[in-house]
Amino acid sequence: MIFSDPASVAVVGASDDPAKWGHWLARGALAGRGRRAVHLVNRGGGAVLSQPTVRSLSELPEAPELVVLAVPPVHVEAVVDEALALGTRGFVGIPSTIDDRVIDRIRAAGARLLGPNCLGVYDAATSLHLAWGQFQPGSLGVVSQSGQVGLEIAGLAASAGLGVSRFVSVGNQVDVTAAEALLDLVSHEMTTVVGVYLESFGPGIVTALGELRAAGKPVVLLTIGASAAAREAALSHTGSLVSSLDVVDAACRRSGALRVATPAALVDLAAVVTHGVPRGVRVGILADSGGQGAIAADLAVAAGLTVPALSAVDGLPAGASTRNPIDLAGAGERDLENYARAVEVLVRGGDVDSVVLSGYFGSYGADTPSLEPVEVAVATRICALARETGVPVVAHSMCTDSAAVRALRSGGVPVQHTIERVVAALGDAARFGSRPAGRAASLRETSAGMYRPGYLAARELLDFVRFPEAHPVTCAEEASATTLTAPFVLKADWLTHKSEHGGVKTNLTDPAAAFEEMQARLGPGTYVLEEMDTREDAVELIIGAKRDESFGPVIVVGAGGVHAELFQDTAVELAPVTPTTAEAMLSRLKTAPLLRGWRGAQPVDLSALAQVIAALSYVITTRQDLAEIELNPVRVGPDGVLAVDALIIPSGDTLNDSGGLHVA
Amino acid sequence: MIFSDPASVAVVGASDDPAKWGHWLARGALAGRGRRAVHLVNRGGGAVLSQPTVRSLSELPEAPELVVLAVPPVHVEAVVDEALALGTRGFVGIPSTIDDRVIDRIRAAGARLLGPNCLGVYDAATSLHLAWGQFQPGSLGVVSQSGQVGLEIAGLAASAGLGVSRFVSVGNQVDVTAAEALLDLVSHEMTTVVGVYLESFGPGIVTALGELRAAGKPVVLLTIGASAAAREAALSHTGSLVSSLDVVDAACRRSGALRVATPAALVDLAAVVTHGVPRGVRVGILADSGGQGAIAADLAVAAGLTVPALSAVDGLPAGASTRNPIDLAGAGERDLENYARAVEVLVRGGDVDSVVLSGYFGSYGADTPSLEPVEVAVATRICALARETGVPVVAHSMCTDSAAVRALRSGGVPVQHTIERVVAALGDAARFGSRPAGRAASLRETSAGMYRPGYLAARELLDFVRFPEAHPVTCAEEASATTLTAPFVLKADWLTHKSEHGGVKTNLTDPAAAFEEMQARLGPGTYVLEEMDTREDAVELIIGAKRDESFGPVIVVGAGGVHAELFQDTAVELAPVTPTTAEAMLSRLKTAPLLRGWRGAQPVDLSALAQVIAALSYVITTRQDLAEIELNPVRVGPDGVLAVDALIIPSGDTLNDSGGLHVA
Repeated sequence: MIFSDPASVAVVGASDDPAKWGHWLARGALAGRGRRAVHLVNRGGGAVLSQPTVRSLSELPEAPELVVLAVPPVHVEAVVDEALALGTRGFVGIPSTIDDRVIDRIRAAGARLLGPNCLGVYDAATSLHLAWGQFQPGSLGVVSQSGQVGLEIAGLAASAGLGVSRFVSVGNQVDVTAAEALLDLVSHEMTTVVGVYLESFGPGIVTALGELRAAGKPVVLLTIGASAAAREAALSHTGSLVSSLDVVDAACRRSGALRVATPAALVDLAAVVTHGVPRGVRVGILADSGGQGAIAADLAVAAGLTVPALSAVDGLPAGASTRNPIDLAGAGERDLENYARAVEVLVRGGDVDSVVLSGYFGSYGADTPSLEPVEVAVATRICALARETGVPVVAHSMCTDSAAVRALRSGGVPVQHTIERVVAALGDAARFGSRPAGRAASLRETSAGMYRPGYLAARELLDFVRFPEAHPVTCAEEASATTLTAPFVLKADWLTHKSEHGGVKTNLTDPAAAFEEMQARLGPGTYVLEEMDTREDAVELIIGAKRDESFGPVIVVGAGGVHAELFQDTAVELAPVTPTTAEAMLSRLKTAPLLRGWRGAQPVDLSALAQVIAALSYVITTRQDLAEIELNPVRVGPDGVLAVDALIIPSGDTLNDSGGLHVA
Repeated sequence: MIFSDPASVAVVGASDDPAKWGHWLARGALAGRGRRAVHLVNRGGGAVLSQPTVRSLSELPEAPELVVLAVPPVHVEAVVDEALALGTRGFVGIPSTIDDRVIDRIRAAGARLLGPNCLGVYDAATSLHLAWGQFQPGSLGVVSQSGQVGLEIAGLAASAGLGVSRFVSVGNQVDVTAAEALLDLVSHEMTTVVGVYLESFGPGIVTALGELRAAGKPVVLLTIGASAAAREAALSHTGSLVSSLDVVDAACRRSGALRVATPAALVDLAAVVTHGVPRGVRVGILADSGGQGAIAADLAVAAGLTVPALSAVDGLPAGASTRNPIDLAGAGERDLENYARAVEVLVRGGDVDSVVLSGYFGSYGADTPSLEPVEVAVATRICALARETGVPVVAHSMCTDSAAVRALRSGGVPVQHTIERVVAALGDAARFGSRPAGRAASLRETSAGMYRPGYLAARELLDFVRFPEAHPVTCAEEASATTLTAPFVLKADWLTHKSEHGGVKTNLTDPAAAFEEMQARLGPGTYVLEEMDTREDAVELIIGAKRDESFGPVIVVGAGGVHAELFQDTAVELAPVTPTTAEAMLSRLKTAPLLRGWRGAQPVDLSALAQVIAALSYVITTRQDLAEIELNPVRVGPDGVLAVDALIIPSGDTLNDSGGLHVA
C-alpha cells in the first residue's frame, strides 16, 4: 500500500536545520534507504544530513511513488503538479491546509492524499518513517486525527515497552479517512492492538472497528466531548437524555471497541490486552505491604473489578496472608522466589481472572545489586506463568526502571509506576473480556402506517406496545357517555408537550367536567379520554429513539419521572437492538434493582419490556420519515408493559413556541 | 524533640551487609554525624561502613539519647533494658512486634517508642536519617501508618521535585501516635504541606489535622476501606447509608483536610497546594494542540472544575484560538515566548483561578538542543507569573525530564507526564480553596426527656420537628371516634421496622376497620392513628444520626424512598452541625434540584429543613444514651417540614428477630 510500503519516496522541503520539520522528515525517510529509494528535494540545493539533494522533483531519475509535502503552503500547488506529471501515486500532506483545487487535481489523477494538517506516517514493518517524532517498534497500531495526540500516544507506548507498529496521522482526512487507515491495520501483521484518537466520526468507523475486533485485534478509542454542553437541544425528552458521548459508547459496544479518556489510559489498556484479555472481572492482588494491597483493592472495586476470597491458597509462602489481597509481608523480602510462588497460586487457583502485583518488586536489584539476578529470574518466571495460564498479570513497581521491570515488560507483564494506571487498565481490559462485540438485530416487519400527528395516531403507528383503553372526545356528552373504567386521564391529542401546557389531567372521576375545563383553556380540538393505570407495583421508565448525526438511529431507555435526568440513569445503544441487548440495557440502569424486585417485590416482566425496546428500535431504523419517537412514561409490572403516553416527531420538523409542531 | 533532633544516636544491629536493614540505618545515621554523635552497635564487633562499632550499648562513652532497634525481636528486650539503664530517652522500633512488658518498661521509664513495625524516621532539617530508603529534602511532611506506603509517597515526592521535610513511620503506634507526629509538624518550619496515610483513626486525629490547617499547612489524607463491605450492619436505615469512608470524608471537611485514594494523588495534590491554593474552580487551559486541550477540558469538568469562556484575551499570540482551552496551534512552535505570553493573559485576566499548560512544552530543548536556553527562560517566566499573581499553574509535558521541566518544578509549577495527574490534583486543590475548615456547631438546649420505646415516645423526645396530628388507639371504638382528618395512617407504635412487618397502613378512610385488620395480625398493643400528609409538592428525605466508632456522633441526610440507597444519594457530617452546614449538606445531594424547585415548582423551605438537621445533630451529640435516631421519611415542601415517622435506638440495644428491640 502506498502509505505503508512505497517503492520510492521523495521528501520535498528536506532541510539541514534541526529546528525544521523537513529535517526530521528527511532523517526518518533516510532510515528506510535499505528498502526503498529515498530522494531529498530542497529548492536551495546543497546537502541535507550529508546526503545530496535535488532542487525539484523533475530532476529525479525516477518518479517517486510517495511524495512528502514538507514545504510552506504557498509552494504546495507547484510541487503537486510536478509530482502528478511524473506519476506520483501518493502524498503526505504536512501543511495545515491545502487548497481545494489542488486536492481535486490529486483525486482526478487517481492519486491519494494523507492529511493535510498531518504529522506523517510510520510503519515499523517496512522501515517507513515519514513523520515528526521518534518511534519505538512494537505492536500498537496508532491512527490519530490529531498528530500531537498521536505522538503523545506513541511516546507513552515507547515508555511502556509497548512500541508502535504503524502510526497514521490522518489530519483533516480530505482524502484518506481514519476508517480506511483502520481497515488497513486488519491485515497488518505486526499490529496486534490498535489505538485510535478521533474528534469526529465519519461513515465506516463502526465497520472498521468491528472488523479489527473480528480479526482479534482489540481497539481502544480515545475521543473528546465529555465536557461539552453535550446534551443536545432536542424536540423530545429522549434527545436531552442522550449525549454525543453516550452514542460513541454505544458504537463501541456494537463494534467491540473500548473508549478511554486519555492517551495514557489508551496505552495502558493496549499494553494489557495485547497479551490477552482477562476472562472476567475477578482480580487477585499480591503485595508485600498490607497498605498497598488495600489501596489496590479499593481501586479495583472502583474500576468495576471484584476481589474475591481465595479457595486455593496451598503453596502460599509462610508468613503471607491468605486473604485477597495477599500480603506477602516479610516473605517476599526473605526469599524473592516467594513472589513467583504466590503468583502461581493465583494464576493456577481458578479463583481469579487476572493478577495485580503491587509494591517493592522491581526495586530489589536496583537498591541491592546482588539481588538483581534472582529478581530478574523471578520476573521471567512470573511472565511464563501468565503466558502458560492465560491469566494476565499486571504490575505496579515503586521502581520506574530496573532490570526486573524490563524483564516483566518484555515478557508480557505491563508495569506502571502508579497503581491507579495498573488497575484502571485492568478494569477496562476486563470489560473487553466480559463483553463480546455486539451485533445489529435483524429487522422485522414494522408498522407501515403513514405518519399522522397527534397522540391517537402515534398509538396506532406504535402498535407493538399496549396502551390504556381510550377514545377521542370532542364534546362533554361524548365524555360523560364513556364506557371506560375510572379513574380517567384526559389529554389534548395534538400537543407535543402535554404536561408543560396543561394538556393532561390525571386521576379524574368526572370526565365531562374535566373536558369542559380543559377545552375552556385550550380551545376546541380532539381530546383523548383514557383509563388510568393505577397498578401500585409498576415501575416507570422512558423508552425513546432518535437519529444521531454521526451514527444514525439510536435507542435509549431511562428511569422514569425525574430520575433519568436527576441521576443520569439512562442506557443508550445503536438501533436496531435485539431483545437480548435490550435486556442488557435494562440491567445497566441504576434503577435495575427496582425492575428485578426491590425488597421482596415481584420482578417486572423484563422480557416483555425488552421486546418493546427492540420493536421501537426497529421502527426508528426502518422509518426514515420519523426523527424521534418516545414512549414516556412506560409503566411495567409483573403483569406486563403499558405505554402511558407517546410522541412521534417526523423528520424535518421543528418545535414551535406553543408546544405544537411546525412542519419546516 | 527526641525523634526529630536527638543529641546522640545509636544504631543497634548496624551491619556491613547491604541486604540488611542495619546497613541502611547505619548509613543514614552516619550522614548526620556533623550534627550529633552517632554510635554503631554490632554484637559481632568489627567495622561497619568503615566505622568502628561497639558490641553493646554499655561500651559507649555516653548514653545515646535515641536508640534505633534494628535487631531481631529476640534481642529487643535486652537492648532496651540496657538503654534504659543508661538513660536513653527514645527508641525507634523496627521489628514487627515488641513484647508488651518491654513496652511497659519503656513507658515506666518516661521514654518514648516509635513503632514497632516501623520503617524509621527522617528529618531533612536536622540531617536525621534513621529509616530504610532514600529521601530527597523538600517541603512535604509525611506521617504513615504503613512504612512502605510512606516510602512510596516519599519516592513519588522525590520524582515530582517536591521532596520530604520529615518522614515518620508510626507503625503500630503503641506509644507515639500519628496524631502526635502530625501535631509535631505544626511548628516544623521546613514542612509547608503534609501527607498522611492512616488505616485507622485514633483520638486526636481531627484536632491534629485541624491545627495543621490552621497553621496554613494543607493536609492530604490517604486511607483505605472504599472496597470493604463498608456499609455496616446497622439497626436503622441510617446505619446502612453511612460507610466508614463517608465519615472519614466528614472528618476531613471538619478539619480542612482532603482525602485521596492513592500515593500518587497525595503527592500530586501536595505539589500543587504547597505553592498556593487556587481561589476557585475556574481553570484556564493552554495547549499547543486542540486535541490535548480538549482532553484536558474533559478531565477538568469531570474533576469538578469549570472551563469558563475568557473575557480578557488581549495579548494572545496571532494564530492562537481565543477560546478556553486556548490552542496555540503553530504560535508556540514559532516563538516559545508565546507560551509565557498566553500564560500571562490567563493569570492576569481575572477569568480563571488556575492554569493548566498541556502538550509539547518541556520537549523543545530536549528534541532541539539549540532551543533549550529560550525554553528554560520561558519556563522561568511562567513560574514568576504564577508567583506574582497567586494563580497556580500546573503543567503536563510530553517530556518526562528536561531542563525546562526542572525549571518549572523548581520554580513552583508542578509538572506531570500524564494529563490526568495534573487535572486530578488541580481539581482536588480547588476543593481545598473553595472550602474552609469546618467548625463544630455550638450546642443548644435539647430535649431532656428520658428515652422510652415506641413511636409516640420518639415524637415527644424529638420535639424540635413537627409530626402529623396523631393519637393512640387501643380499640376500634377509639379509632372510629377520632376527630382527625382523613386520609389516615395507622401504625403499630412498638415496631422498629413497621413497613417490613406490616405495621403501617396508609391512605385509610375507615380507621376502625384498618385497626381491626392490623390488630388481628399483630396482636393487642398500642396503635397510632395519624393524619396522612398528602401534599403533592412535598419532597421526601431521610434524616438520621448515629455514632461512629472512630469519630463519634454523625448526622446523615439522604434522598427519600428507595433513592438514597439506589442512587447512593446521601450527605454525611460529623455532629453537631450548624444550620449553615446542614444547608451545604442538602446542596450536595443529587436530589438537590428537587429541593430548589424542579421544572418551575416552588422551592421547599430549605431553612426549616436545615434547622431540623442541625437540631437532630445536637441531640445525638448530647444524648449519650441514644445510639441511633432516624426521621424517615421527612416530607418537606414550600410550607415547611413534617416528619412522618421516627425511630430511636438507645445505646446498648440490639435488634431482635421480630423487628422489635431487645435491651442487651
